Amino acid sequence: MPDQIDQAIIYARNHHSDFLSELKDFVSIPSVSTTPEYKQEMEKAAHKVAQMASSAGLENIQIYPTSGHPIVFGEWLHAKNQPTILIYGHYDVQPVDPVDLWETPPFQPSLRDQYFLGRGASDMKGQIVAVFAALQSIRHTTGSFPVNIKLMIEGEEEIGSPHLRTFIEDHRSMLSCDVSLNPDAGMIAPDLPTLVYALRGLVFFELKVFGPEHDLHSGVFGGVVHNPAQALCEIIASMHDENGRITIPGFYDHVRTLSLEEREELSRLPMGEDYYLQQTGAPQLWGEPDYTPVERIGARPTLEVNGLFSGFTGQGTKTVLPAYAMAKISCRIVADQEPDEIHRLLRHYLEQHIPSTVRWELNYFGGAPASITDPNHPAATAMKKALELVWKTRPLLKREGGSIPVVGDIQKILGADSVLTGFGLPDDRIHSPNERLHLPTWFKGIEALIAFFYLMKSNLQE
Amino acid sequence: MPDQIDQAIIYARNHHSDFLSELKDFVSIPSVSTTPEYKQEMEKAAHKVAQMASSAGLENIQIYPTSGHPIVFGEWLHAKNQPTILIYGHYDVQPVDPVDLWETPPFQPSLRDQYFLGRGASDMKGQIVAVFAALQSIRHTTGSFPVNIKLMIEGEEEIGSPHLRTFIEDHRSMLSCDVSLNPDAGMIAPDLPTLVYALRGLVFFELKVFGPEHDLHSGVFGGVVHNPAQALCEIIASMHDENGRITIPGFYDHVRTLSLEEREELSRLPMGEDYYLQQTGAPQLWGEPDYTPVERIGARPTLEVNGLFSGFTGQGTKTVLPAYAMAKISCRIVADQEPDEIHRLLRHYLEQHIPSTVRWELNYFGGAPASITDPNHPAATAMKKALELVWKTRPLLKREGGSIPVVGDIQKILGADSVLTGFGLPDDRIHSPNERLHLPTWFKGIEALIAFFYLMKSNLQE
Repeated sequence: MPDQIDQAIIYARNHHSDFLSELKDFVSIPSVSTTPEYKQEMEKAAHKVAQMASSAGLENIQIYPTSGHPIVFGEWLHAKNQPTILIYGHYDVQPVDPVDLWETPPFQPSLRDQYFLGRGASDMKGQIVAVFAALQSIRHTTGSFPVNIKLMIEGEEEIGSPHLRTFIEDHRSMLSCDVSLNPDAGMIAPDLPTLVYALRGLVFFELKVFGPEHDLHSGVFGGVVHNPAQALCEIIASMHDENGRITIPGFYDHVRTLSLEEREELSRLPMGEDYYLQQTGAPQLWGEPDYTPVERIGARPTLEVNGLFSGFTGQGTKTVLPAYAMAKISCRIVADQEPDEIHRLLRHYLEQHIPSTVRWELNYFGGAPASITDPNHPAATAMKKALELVWKTRPLLKREGGSIPVVGDIQKILGADSVLTGFGLPDDRIHSPNERLHLPTWFKGIEALIAFFYLMKSNLQE
Repeated sequence: MPDQIDQAIIYARNHHSDFLSELKDFVSIPSVSTTPEYKQEMEKAAHKVAQMASSAGLENIQIYPTSGHPIVFGEWLHAKNQPTILIYGHYDVQPVDPVDLWETPPFQPSLRDQYFLGRGASDMKGQIVAVFAALQSIRHTTGSFPVNIKLMIEGEEEIGSPHLRTFIEDHRSMLSCDVSLNPDAGMIAPDLPTLVYALRGLVFFELKVFGPEHDLHSGVFGGVVHNPAQALCEIIASMHDENGRITIPGFYDHVRTLSLEEREELSRLPMGEDYYLQQTGAPQLWGEPDYTPVERIGARPTLEVNGLFSGFTGQGTKTVLPAYAMAKISCRIVADQEPDEIHRLLRHYLEQHIPSTVRWELNYFGGAPASITDPNHPAATAMKKALELVWKTRPLLKREGGSIPVVGDIQKILGADSVLTGFGLPDDRIHSPNERLHLPTWFKGIEALIAFFYLMKSNLQE
């Protein structure tokens, strides 16, 4: 078995340029799921996934349409008495604005030093290509796979996966598996392989505040109507106290308390104040003083303003009293908060606190609950071993601040836990201009995935 | 004299369609002063003003370049021993956004019912054309003007007239006059002619708040850095108390107190709560409870958010923790507040109150002080008589909420008071989509201007 792993790894090392070329083609497709005009590009990206799955040796590849963007399925089921691993991924990417801050065009990927640059390079087209690279390396070495493989790659992760749950529900038997591999989590540093055991959930809103019927002259009417931009600022400001704690009554009611043991484990992560200052470039850290940065990100919910708009925002000045103001707001939630409950609490708070001098409207875009999985699950153990084999160091356990809604859905509907890893780094600038992928880490990641698939077999046999 | 007035008025009535055609040509020029790409259109508008001045019978017409947009001058100085009136106006207009709310293209003027539609129709291209129409009607009736006329039409009023003060200082003798006529004020209702005796001043700012060095993933980093959009909302919210009073220390220190007599005079204006509810379409009025709406607009300062921008504002959602947030802020100030003092107070407040978890930057775009003129000035008396002659009702006296910085400059530099009137209406939607001009009022306004020029003569002779 170690021989087979070694051989597949040698194959992978000999094919780095092929893998890079595949990644380049994939990242070149502007598969921005939230922007309606990219609909055709989304189709193109789905077909690219199907082609890569086929080249890697998967069978029965199908592109399932949804009323949003399609889902790509594939499988290889010839490993008798071996576990079945459902590989999850997403081929959609975040929008690229502010586009003028990109140093290279976001969809014309390029290499610079040890980095591959482009939107989606790290989140998560690079991770998908790494999986296919690992499968292809195994397949070319042994002619088959050590375990059974299923593949489910969606195109709507960045917009909250609105059609994935229904798809999983409608295809329970097709997707049935022993465990899911989700490579959409990241690493802490190039030399610190990481296994993620908890994820935050997510709830999306858009709050619109309406004042006068149309934009007014700020001289002729300023002083007698409540400026909706000001009213919006007032309500947003009121939702945090001076310690960064959310003031919405009931917001923290179902937040699972961190155990002392867990806090101790998390304190081993090399991510203190300095780390976050360096990663963010913020002048100072902020947030609930009773929790460390790692705890605030992994185990505490947030209420974040993602966007603000009102009135005149061009160059120069305009003396307008705007008719409306808008905020995009989202909450990262933790176990055991529920999206619908957060929506209910927020709406109730707005009803109580937005004054009758303005009108308002809250759009709820849905969300996904947080998830926690057992770090001693057999697949988690296999992944820890695989990571240790490649990196020669014991992997860290981490609670992730991001959200991967599918983890909860797969657990609920298919009864399968997920093993979460990934080979992106914190300074990959995912969701931001100049997203990038650290190639030395990525190449190691391919090798770890090769080892993982083999170890999943031995794992059951031991 | 009344005969001459009548004859000129008859001429005007016979030439309505000519005046409308002139207005249509003028409004068709997109002379938006704040937008650099309209520079050529600004030149075109200045030339149009020069052409209209010439047609009306003025002489020595010149277009003076500035380092911004040009100023148009003209004169007629053949009325011996008669007063000289300096007519002020501006040919620039406000931007048209949000452009999708316009029912007709803003620079393709059209007629609908009793209205002339287009950007600048009311503010103030219509008022300029009314002056030229009155002059032309007098000139064609009597072959000369009853008083001396000077003309100064600028192209930067909507951006705070940055070059006008220097121009006036540099051309004191050319512009010397007994009084200035400023038709950039409006009427309260079609049947209520109005003379304005006070104006608010204006100060412009742009506040930028910076958090992380670049946009961050709201999951990976949410909870440890101060969201700059939230920080901006917090500081904006803090600048008003629950009674709509501005909290910046010292802000009200130099506000001139309203006398009891003045409050009584202002209370005669038919502009109560219902009026402002109807004009604005706001669900409810707002503002300092100790002052009536008319007092709040005419005699109390404001701090208004004119624009907000941060992060993602497109369709759908984006889980970004934005790197920066921006607000356009302006204050309407009253006698005896000074723009530079307001700037100093605001900056000091921000220094004291914006936390060190974010960086910030305040851009000061300058401003203009408020002004008050004596309602019993001879030219004001002539205008009151002229308005009464046409409307058959005693004009109202009003404090205007808007700002016309030139009034203070002309007073300070040329030693001349201004008589302020105008034939726009409160529901003309100036600065907003679907700006319009009420034609029956406009036609009456032309007649009142005819009477005013004649009465200025008799006024001195009486």
